[in-house]
Amino acid sequence: MPLLVVGSVALDSVHTPREVRENVLGGSAVYFSYAASFFTPVRLVGVVGEDWPEEHTQFLKSRRIDTSGLQVVPGGKTFRWRGRYEQNMNDRETLEVHLNVLGDVAPALPDDFKRCPYVFLANGSPEAQIKVLDQMIGPRLVVADTMDLWIRNNHDDLMELFRRINGLVLNDSEAKLLTGDENLVRAGHRIRELGPKFVVIKKGEHGAMFFSEYEMYVLPAYPTELVVDPTGAGDSFAGGMMGYLSEFGDFSAPSLKRAMAYGILIASFNVEDFSLERLKTLSREELEFRMQQYQRMLSF
Amino acid sequence: MPLLVVGSVALDSVHTPREVRENVLGGSAVYFSYAASFFTPVRLVGVVGEDWPEEHTQFLKSRRIDTSGLQVVPGGKTFRWRGRYEQNMNDRETLEVHLNVLGDVAPALPDDFKRCPYVFLANGSPEAQIKVLDQMIGPRLVVADTMDLWIRNNHDDLMELFRRINGLVLNDSEAKLLTGDENLVRAGHRIRELGPKFVVIKKGEHGAMFFSEYEMYVLPAYPTELVVDPTGAGDSFAGGMMGYLSEFGDFSAPSLKRAMAYGILIASFNVEDFSLERLKTLSREELEFRMQQYQRMLSF
Repeated sequence: MPLLVVGSVALDSVHTPREVRENVLGGSAVYFSYAASFFTPVRLVGVVGEDWPEEHTQFLKSRRIDTSGLQVVPGGKTFRWRGRYEQNMNDRETLEVHLNVLGDVAPALPDDFKRCPYVFLANGSPEAQIKVLDQMIGPRLVVADTMDLWIRNNHDDLMELFRRINGLVLNDSEAKLLTGDENLVRAGHRIRELGPKFVVIKKGEHGAMFFSEYEMYVLPAYPTELVVDPTGAGDSFAGGMMGYLSEFGDFSAPSLKRAMAYGILIASFNVEDFSLERLKTLSREELEFRMQQYQRMLSF
Repeated sequence: MPLLVVGSVALDSVHTPREVRENVLGGSAVYFSYAASFFTPVRLVGVVGEDWPEEHTQFLKSRRIDTSGLQVVPGGKTFRWRGRYEQNMNDRETLEVHLNVLGDVAPALPDDFKRCPYVFLANGSPEAQIKVLDQMIGPRLVVADTMDLWIRNNHDDLMELFRRINGLVLNDSEAKLLTGDENLVRAGHRIRELGPKFVVIKKGEHGAMFFSEYEMYVLPAYPTELVVDPTGAGDSFAGGMMGYLSEFGDFSAPSLKRAMAYGILIASFNVEDFSLERLKTLSREELEFRMQQYQRMLSF
């Protein structure tokens, strides 16, 4: 079943302790789409500028990603982000952000996207996320991401959003900021009480936690020594998770856990190279093989 | 099969954001012993001063812990530690350390302890740990803990120790310090190459990682919202792990993983109250019930 994602499409410049890559393909909606495309057809909504290389669009199209919602703004420039990772490859510093068209143009939903049953609202202002939701007709599952900026500055909109979504995905530091609670178990449950039926707290190299009314669990990240570029790990996690759920259209507790595991594994591949380079060469067979290793690792 | 532990016996003063407890029972050998006593008879070796409350000895004796290696130094004072936990209950600051007898007296091994097949060398100077090993006759399994102080200042002794032990348990920050590598997967393998057949890296609230020549895995901590006092979590983890291995005398890969899971669960109970208060009331049935929950959490 098709999965809709609305989010940023970017040209990233990434500094790691070993290497710098300039203007590579990035953005939350891009990482999400590609990760989800292992499981299900994806419909991408976002805005770019005239500087957007057409080859990126062709690349996304080659993966069952419908790019008819990718709007090219005449005279505009694509969103650009520049960041530097520290030696530990977990902490990063944003060096430059140029919102460009992202700051000016609200992405418009093509009509045939409005009945898409699965929706992911990648990180964006809660106001913009709500505007997307307002256009959707009878979605079966809506999951959103958010970030510290909106938690600090857009509290009321965020609370409205929370009442209208089924699931929320956010980082551990954001969960602590949102609740003022340093204990992630309590924080997760508190956020769930704000509206979402389930909450996923991403812990980076330490995995992810899941909260619903009946269940709470944590799954570790897949341990890897090959961490080249963590950019997009969180978005590819969400893409893997939502992609799996959309493939089967089943939101039972076992499916949700399996979906989270797929998200963790896709993210573990994503960090093995810059941009989407590793996901480009990843096969479903490799993914399933790592899933077997992961399940073996967790059984005793 | 009996398990020997050599380590500190202490009176701790613990400041948490909610409460302060003065001069409560603590020390690495004490937490370790009590945790291991759920599985196997324990022989404790350590030194205390004349101020040591006899009731603590009686309490340990009541749990199959042989305290004949607990030496009371006439005119001496027991090791005291005072620490304060931050709001996140993960970071802590040491406010006071009084080594007292711990700085003056090397613990002596009773003769009938020297053939003990299972040995845990709790955190102490590698020189002292080696001296204990020199007295042991044909141990089957020797595991040691260490800390940043020895990594910084006693490198040569530590390298000698590593060549003489079967397993090493240390914290994530210590593993990074020891190897200069921020990636824990690489760090764990590198430490293993220094001598120990297996290495366990403790990650606090994020669980623990295991490394042997053939296996590498990570298990998450048991998620709990009840964290009253994390003191002794690492030592009770090691006690649970070593206790389980000593109970069955089997060091196969599945046993080692199960042992690590027991360590994680005992530690998860330990943090639920000050000192050994929670472990005192813990039953083996409660522990097994949490093990079932934990295994269910990790299966999908």
